[in-house]
Amino acid sequence: MLTKTLKSSKTFDSINATYLTRGGFIDQTMSGVYSYLPLGWRVLHKIENIVREEMDTIAEEVFLPSMVPFDIWQTTGRIDSVDVLMKAVPANAMSKERNDAEYILNCTHEDTITPIAKKFATSYRELPKAVYQIQTKFRNEARAKAGILRGREFRMKDLYSFHASVEDFKRYYEKSKEVYMSAFKRLGLGKDTVIAAASGGDFTDDYSHEFQTKCEAGEDTLFYVSSTQETFNKEIAPAKAVKLSKDTKQKPLEKVFGEGIIGVDDLCKFMGITPEETTKTLIFETENGPIICSIRGDYDVNELKLKKVAGVKSLKLASEKVVKKVTGSIIGYAGVYNLPKGIPVYIDDSSADLVNFETGANEAHYHMKNMNWDRDVKRPAKFYDIKVAKVGDIYPETGEVYDTFRAAEVGNIFPLYTRFSDAVGYKYTDDKGNLQPVYMGSYGLGTTRVMGVLVEKFHDDKGIIWPIQVAPYIVHLVTLGESTEVMELATRVYDNLLKNKVEIVWDDRTSVSAGEKFTDADLIGCPIRLTISARSLEKNGVEIKARSRAESKIISEVEVLKSVETLADELLNE
Amino acid sequence: MLTKTLKSSKTFDSINATYLTRGGFIDQTMSGVYSYLPLGWRVLHKIENIVREEMDTIAEEVFLPSMVPFDIWQTTGRIDSVDVLMKAVPANAMSKERNDAEYILNCTHEDTITPIAKKFATSYRELPKAVYQIQTKFRNEARAKAGILRGREFRMKDLYSFHASVEDFKRYYEKSKEVYMSAFKRLGLGKDTVIAAASGGDFTDDYSHEFQTKCEAGEDTLFYVSSTQETFNKEIAPAKAVKLSKDTKQKPLEKVFGEGIIGVDDLCKFMGITPEETTKTLIFETENGPIICSIRGDYDVNELKLKKVAGVKSLKLASEKVVKKVTGSIIGYAGVYNLPKGIPVYIDDSSADLVNFETGANEAHYHMKNMNWDRDVKRPAKFYDIKVAKVGDIYPETGEVYDTFRAAEVGNIFPLYTRFSDAVGYKYTDDKGNLQPVYMGSYGLGTTRVMGVLVEKFHDDKGIIWPIQVAPYIVHLVTLGESTEVMELATRVYDNLLKNKVEIVWDDRTSVSAGEKFTDADLIGCPIRLTISARSLEKNGVEIKARSRAESKIISEVEVLKSVETLADELLNE
Repeated sequence: MLTKTLKSSKTFDSINATYLTRGGFIDQTMSGVYSYLPLGWRVLHKIENIVREEMDTIAEEVFLPSMVPFDIWQTTGRIDSVDVLMKAVPANAMSKERNDAEYILNCTHEDTITPIAKKFATSYRELPKAVYQIQTKFRNEARAKAGILRGREFRMKDLYSFHASVEDFKRYYEKSKEVYMSAFKRLGLGKDTVIAAASGGDFTDDYSHEFQTKCEAGEDTLFYVSSTQETFNKEIAPAKAVKLSKDTKQKPLEKVFGEGIIGVDDLCKFMGITPEETTKTLIFETENGPIICSIRGDYDVNELKLKKVAGVKSLKLASEKVVKKVTGSIIGYAGVYNLPKGIPVYIDDSSADLVNFETGANEAHYHMKNMNWDRDVKRPAKFYDIKVAKVGDIYPETGEVYDTFRAAEVGNIFPLYTRFSDAVGYKYTDDKGNLQPVYMGSYGLGTTRVMGVLVEKFHDDKGIIWPIQVAPYIVHLVTLGESTEVMELATRVYDNLLKNKVEIVWDDRTSVSAGEKFTDADLIGCPIRLTISARSLEKNGVEIKARSRAESKIISEVEVLKSVETLADELLNE
Repeated sequence: MLTKTLKSSKTFDSINATYLTRGGFIDQTMSGVYSYLPLGWRVLHKIENIVREEMDTIAEEVFLPSMVPFDIWQTTGRIDSVDVLMKAVPANAMSKERNDAEYILNCTHEDTITPIAKKFATSYRELPKAVYQIQTKFRNEARAKAGILRGREFRMKDLYSFHASVEDFKRYYEKSKEVYMSAFKRLGLGKDTVIAAASGGDFTDDYSHEFQTKCEAGEDTLFYVSSTQETFNKEIAPAKAVKLSKDTKQKPLEKVFGEGIIGVDDLCKFMGITPEETTKTLIFETENGPIICSIRGDYDVNELKLKKVAGVKSLKLASEKVVKKVTGSIIGYAGVYNLPKGIPVYIDDSSADLVNFETGANEAHYHMKNMNWDRDVKRPAKFYDIKVAKVGDIYPETGEVYDTFRAAEVGNIFPLYTRFSDAVGYKYTDDKGNLQPVYMGSYGLGTTRVMGVLVEKFHDDKGIIWPIQVAPYIVHLVTLGESTEVMELATRVYDNLLKNKVEIVWDDRTSVSAGEKFTDADLIGCPIRLTISARSLEKNGVEIKARSRAESKIISEVEVLKSVETLADELLNE
């Protein structure tokens, strides 16, 4: 094997990078870019083959280019708006002289596949169609992090489907969920992977869906409603704040001078109050003019929700000039006190029950303290949900407090409707000869990311514990000492397992100690360890141990194959 | 299937692009970049799996990054000298703001793998090692041409080996030739693929070797010596010109005024002579100062040979200034007449037998006509081989005229010796604890190129005739008409073949004619066609026909599986 385990105590920012590097599975070429060494490639190849087999049930495999002309991305209008997009250009003077061109490096393939489908599936008879590929993608991430969970170069399966009707698309979309769950089950992630609703983007009110694996190292917080079994990602979880049990006696309103006191933290310190007693008021510019929104100080505004509530498409924080025009004051002192007329105001429900709260005075350097609805400002007819959900929030539909957990995204599926078919002018001819819109979906699954998540989920303090279906080898054979008996028995066991198509790796190194060999076996994490040594021979046999179990036992030579197969079955069904 | 055959009469610059596009195997995204559609990907995947199985016998599979930091290519000194090198940079302003970085896009991986081997194989115990990968490569070709034979983005298998001694490297290098030939045999190219000696590059006198498939569409001309069974590529073929049978009576020397008459073509027209009666004299600058070389007018100078003959490393055509200094004249009138003293002169053997030849006068606007050795200029003590070999040339060792043929390169293997290990400071510790150099080889095989060469070799005027081992499907089932009998029999045949793991595609389209279905089957080129129609049913059976054979026969339903298997075996062994 080219690779070996590394003694290096170098730890990375993640368990997956640390164990995979120490175990000789991967080697970091640069931040966010890894080489897959023989052990690592074996695992990735197994993951990708499982994904391939599952996708083959609903789509055909293709292989699309990484490098495409600019006009492909110009046609879909994404060339300037995808903030991770890279391009390929000549690297030196000689290359530039040969061919002074620039090509887009695809980070996703909607733009590339839609014109192809337009060539090949133009009649109702030729729809639906679905294709997928497993391929390297390039993303210009600001900070590549979490090992192989988020890279600048990574591998994924991406699938695209084309349909003659919304109904057909939806049927396929639901079917894809089943296929994804079947794939994750085979990958060892079935029990802990859930489908979470996520934003459908600007062009549809439908949700997209994320496949999220519960995992402490995950980047996401998910919100689960146990009575309805729905899961939402943080971005879209509908949320109601828990009512704070506060003194309800109204105090006199005060106007407080606080020059330079801007932002919730400064304000709380200055006034000696908590964030829950403050409110944040923000002015946004939209395509319909400015709007005002306000939220309790311990929440952040969710722009996605605010857009929907306000019925606008574009939203950006107002300039100093607009803030001045709307509030009459400089930035930092906007509030719900003395609000200007004629500008829409959206106040989050977290503020509904507040008593004696702080708000900006809409006057330079002044804050209002002990504000109360109706007494100091008219209580709005309606409060909204424009907040980023937090742990402890309530699901408004049922009133339950959400169960929340950390998770890592391992896949996502996305209703595209006619976003891309419209962009490239792709319609099909129906059975009456009329042109009709083509409905699309896209379906991603990060294969290198799955490998990272597997390590994050299945490890202990000694190393990785691979699920048997993706393990680099099923059996890790360790021999201790080089006596003729040990080597002869090991050779027979090794050959017999190989002959019976059991994947086995034999650590026959003579220059390392028994301790090192066991340490390496635990680090690498093959599901079954066989040990042949003078001690095992005394008991006339071979020691067998599962990586995931503490106990081991001695079996005789003739029992090895059967025992390995039985243990493998047990581990597969665990 | 996403794809369908295209009626388009568009023809590309190559058979492979034309048939693969019309057959729906590939789709051109831009010049030199293709999408592999379901049919094409099936073929490519089979090619790559055969290559994988063969390479697994001598190396371990890995997967190295496409995108690497500049310093990797700076360390090996290739960053400015590889003229097809590309880099990845942000594609738009938002991306640039996220991460304003530049990365090299690998077109080959010596620079990337050597530092990894340096980490993992540092002791004599850990050598030899060899790894390979199958991956997309990026090359900034000036003109991408010949369909998928030469692309800007293509797929190849590249293998790198690391050795403790030259002897061990050479052993492995010879072994690799066997494995390559075994792979080409399985790919259907065994009979027509030869190993040709090629240049070993600047750092070794050894040859590298090319695997070349005889093929009219090939870009290369190979030179074969039947008595020794050696094959050389054009670049290095040792060559002696055939002696021209010319009048041997010397004519009087003439000095001819020919202002602006520069270059062999103009000169021949002006003087009414043939290229074989002229000579070309070129001045080169080298690291040791200028040199002069001369060759018969119908040959080109081979700079690789000239470098070796002159014992220099750098060679470039002399500037106007240097030409003036050496010949005393302006560019275009250099010759072997009145040569300056003290500057090395290398004259090709093609000029040795010339009588009454033309040469430049080394004087502005003048040429010498009817030059003769010894009478007009001293006959050199030695003539050299500094020519680019031509069809009809002689192999100097045996005096035979070369057999020449066109061929397409499908692989190459390269002795690297310590070129890259030296560059990255990679040495190993021998059994005495001393540091020793690591010897390397690299081994390439273009998988998309193999697919293109297969089409170039195996087609007729109706379409492709795939070798069975890489065919998209083994059986192409055509049904004509939709009668219950036809459809029921077809369903039974289809299911039975599938159940027996025979890859089959069924053209069950109802909207196209019988003629179109047969035309498509011939174009797509699956090895065996089964036809079920009213006519075949009359004879109570199924028509079976090999794509490569003219005759067909009717067999009964129960014979189908056996007949398909028998025919498939025959085709495999053809």
